Amino acid sequence: MPQLSEKGKIMPASPIRKLVPYADAAKKRGVKVYHLNIGQPDIVTPQCALDAVKAYDGKVIEYSHSAGNLSYRKGLTEYYKSIGINITEDEIIVTNGGSEAITIAMMACLNPGDEIIIPEPFYTNYNSFALQAGVKVVPIKTTIANDFALPSIEDFEKIINPRTKAIMICNPNNPTGYLYSAAELETLRQIVLKYDLFLFADEVYREFCYDGNSHISCMTLKGLENNVVLMDSVSKRYSMCGVRVGAIISHNKELINAALRFGQARLCPPFYGQLAAEAALKTPKDYFDGVYNEYIARRDYMVKALNEIPGVYCPKPKGAFYTVVKLPIDDSERFARWLLEEFQYENKTVMVAPAAGFYSTKGCGLDEVRIAYVLKIDDLKEAIKCLAEALKVYPGRK
Amino acid sequence: MPQLSEKGKIMPASPIRKLVPYADAAKKRGVKVYHLNIGQPDIVTPQCALDAVKAYDGKVIEYSHSAGNLSYRKGLTEYYKSIGINITEDEIIVTNGGSEAITIAMMACLNPGDEIIIPEPFYTNYNSFALQAGVKVVPIKTTIANDFALPSIEDFEKIINPRTKAIMICNPNNPTGYLYSAAELETLRQIVLKYDLFLFADEVYREFCYDGNSHISCMTLKGLENNVVLMDSVSKRYSMCGVRVGAIISHNKELINAALRFGQARLCPPFYGQLAAEAALKTPKDYFDGVYNEYIARRDYMVKALNEIPGVYCPKPKGAFYTVVKLPIDDSERFARWLLEEFQYENKTVMVAPAAGFYSTKGCGLDEVRIAYVLKIDDLKEAIKCLAEALKVYPGRK
Repeated sequence: MPQLSEKGKIMPASPIRKLVPYADAAKKRGVKVYHLNIGQPDIVTPQCALDAVKAYDGKVIEYSHSAGNLSYRKGLTEYYKSIGINITEDEIIVTNGGSEAITIAMMACLNPGDEIIIPEPFYTNYNSFALQAGVKVVPIKTTIANDFALPSIEDFEKIINPRTKAIMICNPNNPTGYLYSAAELETLRQIVLKYDLFLFADEVYREFCYDGNSHISCMTLKGLENNVVLMDSVSKRYSMCGVRVGAIISHNKELINAALRFGQARLCPPFYGQLAAEAALKTPKDYFDGVYNEYIARRDYMVKALNEIPGVYCPKPKGAFYTVVKLPIDDSERFARWLLEEFQYENKTVMVAPAAGFYSTKGCGLDEVRIAYVLKIDDLKEAIKCLAEALKVYPGRK
Repeated sequence: MPQLSEKGKIMPASPIRKLVPYADAAKKRGVKVYHLNIGQPDIVTPQCALDAVKAYDGKVIEYSHSAGNLSYRKGLTEYYKSIGINITEDEIIVTNGGSEAITIAMMACLNPGDEIIIPEPFYTNYNSFALQAGVKVVPIKTTIANDFALPSIEDFEKIINPRTKAIMICNPNNPTGYLYSAAELETLRQIVLKYDLFLFADEVYREFCYDGNSHISCMTLKGLENNVVLMDSVSKRYSMCGVRVGAIISHNKELINAALRFGQARLCPPFYGQLAAEAALKTPKDYFDGVYNEYIARRDYMVKALNEIPGVYCPKPKGAFYTVVKLPIDDSERFARWLLEEFQYENKTVMVAPAAGFYSTKGCGLDEVRIAYVLKIDDLKEAIKCLAEALKVYPGRK
């Protein structure tokens, strides 16, 4: 029997999906499980996007352009212009979700063995994409004590070495909900210029910024035209995670040309998804206002309720729809499994994402979980009540 | 300015797409261009697939399962059963087209530096997928003089070495239209067993077998349960290349588990595409009969008409909808460009795919082109007439 490759052997399973069988078993026992663990919002997809797909009357679902349909890319330039990012349709490669944007960028920019610095905790799959490209992720630690603010230039310089090729940020951040400030982005700008690095900017949550804070895109940082690679996705913006439409965007012509060649190899992004994504560009403003108000209400409730539980600390996230919360527990993986396997309160329990999965450094995040506030506020209330009750009786309480 | 990676620098552009600007220029001059160069059929997508997408009434387009929707995978097991392939829904990972099935299989099975033997000429993008995985493609030559039959065991053994990890075939073949016989597959079976290799089988054209020849799937080869990896796609079967739905299928549980972990990293295959693909499983038999009759008529006309042109040899393809044709020319890339830039006959010309792009060995295929018979028969007639006229006056005629 032939052996798998190293990558085939060590590619990690999704840490959240590992818990799914326990959640399924709980449901089979008749226990209601509140999913605070996933980034699948319950917000409806804009009607104009759904309608565009239903209205399509073509008879052959053909390949599209490898860079994505021209009409969609032209539409995207208008969208980006409206948020202060000036690009042309030739600076966009439409991808199979944000995921493919990241894999293409990593492969096109970094050689196997090259290093990419990512503030941790970070979105778990960055590790998987790096593994595919043979790239080494070098974490730079951010802490809940500091609300996950960006480390200093000095901290970056301690780990930069000749193999360092890129820095990657997610802004607003999954899993922390942190939104980088103008000063922090200026720090990044200086490091990137000084060491001539790529700056990978995952900005898929840019529409989710709260409290009057505005999102500053890395694409607007001066002098980084050839360094910044923007990874985008329509998944969260329009609550249509399933359409699998993202984009890789850069002013670096050489890079976009390379990304196109990677895109040609896999032929094209999905047709129907592009149809939905192009139509979604016309989503009325009140849709976003409604989404914004809903998330603000959820967040405000959640932050207050969590911080009222003894021993719990929840920073106030300024963006996205996640927060990393510190709990008085021994091991969040054990806790998450215990919640599903052994605990129930009034026949209900919660599923959370253990934060250890978002850290690359072993031993970090053991007393933290990521909570996604993607539930309606009444469900969120029930879920947090469950969590509070669970913490009273969890045997691994610290 | 940071430098791209090696892969970013050398990832090849699609050899066909390189000709697109010349075709566009010809069209701008008012010349009609017959596209014999592409694998985009003009056949309509089954109505039941189009209808299923239009009828979908869900309000949130959510992530699907990373392995693909369970209902679709269950439906697929019935489809495969009907063609003699017995698999369970746990032996299928639904992918972003056949392309992703190949990249995942290569990464999960082969280490960088490992070798994969592929009979050439072969589908150009195999090279691109191998480059992404850092895998070395070792071509084994097949020739038009022999109608592109599989080389002997001895020929394979000449190039097998300790780094050889897999053999890949496309059956029926793109670009040659060749269909492997039972005896040839037995040859492959013996080599694969003897050297304990993976056998990658790209069978996306299995519905396109002619002259009473039936398709033998590698999945049915005895004793290769842990060796065979099937790459499939709905693109050609249902003429819906744009939906981007493929699959990686294997009885090798370790491999499927690895493929699932790669699948989890990119979250899921496209929602709407899966909706179309699942509905397409109910495509009535008369759809396939109609498609079959259409292709047979096109092929028969094409083979006869091409072989009537002085100096031209076209083997009779037994499958798929391509043929590699030998022309009396110096250089097929130059010829293809000349057809678009300088030639016209009654204000018409043709676009063909230079065969050199399908060979990995330098200098091969210079006097061959791939022709896709994806045009209606009247257009095919006009196109071949153009080609005949062109060959009369082409300055590089041999």
